[in-house]
Amino acid sequence: MNIRAASEKDLDQIWSIFHEIVSAGETYAYPQDTTKEQALDIWLITPRKTFVVEENGNILGTYYLKTSQAGPGSHVCNCGYMVSSQARGRGLATFMCKHSQDTAKELGYKAMQFNFVASSNEGAVRLWTKLGFETVGKLPKAFDHPVKGYVDALIMYKWL
Amino acid sequence: MNIRAASEKDLDQIWSIFHEIVSAGETYAYPQDTTKEQALDIWLITPRKTFVVEENGNILGTYYLKTSQAGPGSHVCNCGYMVSSQARGRGLATFMCKHSQDTAKELGYKAMQFNFVASSNEGAVRLWTKLGFETVGKLPKAFDHPVKGYVDALIMYKWL
Repeated sequence: MNIRAASEKDLDQIWSIFHEIVSAGETYAYPQDTTKEQALDIWLITPRKTFVVEENGNILGTYYLKTSQAGPGSHVCNCGYMVSSQARGRGLATFMCKHSQDTAKELGYKAMQFNFVASSNEGAVRLWTKLGFETVGKLPKAFDHPVKGYVDALIMYKWL
Repeated sequence: MNIRAASEKDLDQIWSIFHEIVSAGETYAYPQDTTKEQALDIWLITPRKTFVVEENGNILGTYYLKTSQAGPGSHVCNCGYMVSSQARGRGLATFMCKHSQDTAKELGYKAMQFNFVASSNEGAVRLWTKLGFETVGKLPKAFDHPVKGYVDALIMYKWL
């Protein structure tokens, strides 16, 4: 298992992970019908960095890192992580989150922020908390969950 | 004094307000050296709606409205307001904020969110609170103020 910078050649494999997660509509603030072309823009073109974790040529997980706010907010970054359903339970999210914090520090960021964590995504909230992120905000009913309806969205934050 | 939809013809007047505020670096998360062309994109092209308040052909204030998050977050909108230094103290921010809430409801939004209010901008915090916005989050040291250094950024939210 190794981690490396992603390239557009990885799009097919990233798309299969992205599409599975985003079409479910339960965790990410992207439209459920996001297209592959839009995913390329969201995950590979717009971010400052994108990484993939691979094993024997198979991509198991991926994350992006970008600047959260411009100008007076540009010392804070934002990341998003996705793990293939075949690779759950192997600690990939933890591994990628730690890697992203190192990357962020190398790039000179002072803090990392998750803008919009569905409160129903309890596993993620628990994991980010364990990794030192504090829940610094709660947006009431800001996430429209396909099964649970409106649930709160959390803002999680860590000074690096 | 009347309010109307903005057009690209208003750019020169909007730019003089925008540039005065953004170059100070004290309130908005845009780079202090944002160009006029970038301002056009930020204020007039990217948002879903932009309005101007004018009096005798002079633009005194302006606001934009856009969707805050896509997909499961798309029922929440975000607005930004700017008032010319010549027109302060005349209630324009209050007027525009109320107008934006009506506009948001007409467009079907359920809530309005301010993503990044510098805590040092006490007048704005007081005003939004008076207009029914709740401080639902505090990002520690997320705003790099040119005079005060790192100050907290607030997230303010109102269910419409």
